[in-house]
Amino acid sequence: MALQEVLQYLDDHRDDHLRQLCDFLKIPSISTQPEYAGDIHRAVGLLTDELAGLGMQPEVIETEGYPLVYAQSEQREGVPTLLFYGHYDVQPVDPVDLWKSPPFEPVIKDGWIIARGASDDKGQMYSHIKAIEAFVRTGIDLPVNIKMIFEGEEECGGESIASYVHKNSQKLGCDMVVISDTHMYDEQTPAICTSLRGLCYMEINLKGPAVDLHSGIYGGVIRNPANALCRIISNLHNEQGRITIPGFYDDVFQVGEDVRREFSRLGHNDGMIKDETGVKAVFGESGFSSLERMWIRPTCDVNGIWSGYTGHGAKTIIPAVAGAKVSMRLVPHQDPNKIADAFTNYIKSNCPDGIEVDVKLLGAAKPVLLPRESPLILAGKTAIEKGFGHKAVFMGDGGSIPIVGTFQESLQVPVLLLGYGLLTDNIHSPNERFKVDHYYRGIRTTALLLEEVAG
Amino acid sequence: MALQEVLQYLDDHRDDHLRQLCDFLKIPSISTQPEYAGDIHRAVGLLTDELAGLGMQPEVIETEGYPLVYAQSEQREGVPTLLFYGHYDVQPVDPVDLWKSPPFEPVIKDGWIIARGASDDKGQMYSHIKAIEAFVRTGIDLPVNIKMIFEGEEECGGESIASYVHKNSQKLGCDMVVISDTHMYDEQTPAICTSLRGLCYMEINLKGPAVDLHSGIYGGVIRNPANALCRIISNLHNEQGRITIPGFYDDVFQVGEDVRREFSRLGHNDGMIKDETGVKAVFGESGFSSLERMWIRPTCDVNGIWSGYTGHGAKTIIPAVAGAKVSMRLVPHQDPNKIADAFTNYIKSNCPDGIEVDVKLLGAAKPVLLPRESPLILAGKTAIEKGFGHKAVFMGDGGSIPIVGTFQESLQVPVLLLGYGLLTDNIHSPNERFKVDHYYRGIRTTALLLEEVAG
Repeated sequence: MALQEVLQYLDDHRDDHLRQLCDFLKIPSISTQPEYAGDIHRAVGLLTDELAGLGMQPEVIETEGYPLVYAQSEQREGVPTLLFYGHYDVQPVDPVDLWKSPPFEPVIKDGWIIARGASDDKGQMYSHIKAIEAFVRTGIDLPVNIKMIFEGEEECGGESIASYVHKNSQKLGCDMVVISDTHMYDEQTPAICTSLRGLCYMEINLKGPAVDLHSGIYGGVIRNPANALCRIISNLHNEQGRITIPGFYDDVFQVGEDVRREFSRLGHNDGMIKDETGVKAVFGESGFSSLERMWIRPTCDVNGIWSGYTGHGAKTIIPAVAGAKVSMRLVPHQDPNKIADAFTNYIKSNCPDGIEVDVKLLGAAKPVLLPRESPLILAGKTAIEKGFGHKAVFMGDGGSIPIVGTFQESLQVPVLLLGYGLLTDNIHSPNERFKVDHYYRGIRTTALLLEEVAG
Repeated sequence: MALQEVLQYLDDHRDDHLRQLCDFLKIPSISTQPEYAGDIHRAVGLLTDELAGLGMQPEVIETEGYPLVYAQSEQREGVPTLLFYGHYDVQPVDPVDLWKSPPFEPVIKDGWIIARGASDDKGQMYSHIKAIEAFVRTGIDLPVNIKMIFEGEEECGGESIASYVHKNSQKLGCDMVVISDTHMYDEQTPAICTSLRGLCYMEINLKGPAVDLHSGIYGGVIRNPANALCRIISNLHNEQGRITIPGFYDDVFQVGEDVRREFSRLGHNDGMIKDETGVKAVFGESGFSSLERMWIRPTCDVNGIWSGYTGHGAKTIIPAVAGAKVSMRLVPHQDPNKIADAFTNYIKSNCPDGIEVDVKLLGAAKPVLLPRESPLILAGKTAIEKGFGHKAVFMGDGGSIPIVGTFQESLQVPVLLLGYGLLTDNIHSPNERFKVDHYYRGIRTTALLLEEVAG
């Protein structure tokens, strides 16, 4: 009956909870651009004020980068402990002219909250706080011990929290980590994510002539760094979409036939990808289905490329330099550092005479495999089924959440990936959004989770 | 003896001529930046005043862009007519902080005039006016009929003069056009340039997904437009540096063995290119020397390329679009429009499923071949040998001067490219300069040219 009261509280406070999320979303806490440092600290202030109001004893942990916010409920003996993680920083907003409303002025439209960070991750992490609020405000004891840690560098490397978790495994000790920073399988199908891809993010810089040259005078005798870069990048794949870096596939875990069959039963079809992305045809490594290519096969994509003149009209130069950001999504059990070395060696061996090359690693995350059979994970599955009113499935996720691997390794507990978002939320893109109904159902799911885990 | 008097006049008026050139160089007649429109008109005023003072009946011809200045001497029967061309506009001065003295405050230092436009083209075109002045002031009849036309849009497209020449071939009728807007082979070797490369400047735009996508979520199933662009550009050349566009070489004029031998006797060595450009190795189409690759072989260079995120750090996206500017230097008898079509077809046929492509032509110029055997061209060679006191050579130029082709076609006469500049004059770059001695020798050469042609 206590739970009913909690759920009733949530129903009664929907408008407040939506307004409060919007206040959080108004803060442009972009971590990759130093000019927003002040806003990062405003986001920290908002969180600590709120957590203090719930009696959660918040603590601002200074780091070499942006602060961590830690909080905990009173810790009782004999009940399980959950550690909730989230991130209060958001992606940059470029290209800003494609936004239909300003990214930091949240708009509620047709059942969606539209704002940068709505789904990734402010809306999802904030659900957990609102669920706890319901227990605290109704005076009902939290059925489990709660710990929470929020970081402000997820979108720019997440180094501070990784090192903090490694050094503070006792303080953060728990029975399960809960993270809502993923998405449902589709709008009708909640999901527990049990695998994540890793990441190896590289930058290549080529240097040709000392300065931009006149392409008429010198065209024909100078190795053009932009042309050379195109050839190097082109050589990263063969015609079948396989990556050609020597040794790249050596450590790839071959997923069992049972899991492949489970994926295939999800009834995914490429029409969905086309609708979601606007492409006319899908493309990927031959021999695998689209779900497999997204969840359990590695990739290599150009994230950005630059060289020479990119303004209006014609400028007849041979550029002095060319560069690209290239990242690889990795799968268990590929090692990002080993892949970075293989990539670097391959790029250098492909760089022609007359061009100098520099290759550097900008970011790395290990791929993750989570235990489907853990009772705590199964409790999460039940909670989300009740919260969303639909049967849940196990799925993979093509993205990387480096902290998941860190938690697994340092705390030696399962990590529950309880995604309230949708794949179509435009995270990292213009017009990011979060379904208002999912926000409410997410809060409800978190409340139910505490009960399920305690039970 | 009349000629002696002319040359004596030139010797006696060196200081005046230098001072007057500096006055011309003080006018920032930058044609690509609208805020200098007033200065363009000041340059026109200076030229018309000067030409009026020489009895050359100057005429300011208004166009849709900047005015043309036309002038002519009294036209007599029975003597050849020369049409001198030059341009009074100059390049922008960016990056201005790399200039050692202000670009429009001419400085004479170590035998050089340093100012924007000193070599390209004010210093060179003004030489012709000073030579004519010598005849007029000494009261000696001009040995040939003179026509002059100067434009103010050479650095921004030159469309007005092209259309004017097409429509006024009778008015501009002559036996040879003379242009001093090129350079000598080296400081000791005056040269007549007999071939210019043409240009075909294209822009490619690829469109993949409707917006930038999360590279984790969609990586593996989406054709990345940046990767696709790299492959398309890489496929433009084979490993031997040859361009692979079908039909690209069909119309390339194979220069005779005699001319190749002449080039090889110039003793060019790749060390010069390395010193000038800072590259550690030269590279180009196999089977040709560096001079041949620069002067008489076509090229295909990326001038600019862009896609995705190019800021600091990492952004994990599959870009929605990717683009490149790619230009080809053409040689006789390649037709820029035919090449543009072949390029477009090839790019389109190389564009994979899932990517939309748009290819457009941004600029074209026909390659030019000038007749080495013409007696008027040979008169020019003799004049520059006498003027500079060294044996002259025939050379090619890798750049494009579109007006040369226009004159050839419309007036059906040879064009004499009588360059008084040097490759190292920093044209289009900071610290543009012109050798003072070359200015005086240039004036002398023009005076000698009138005699040689008349003879």
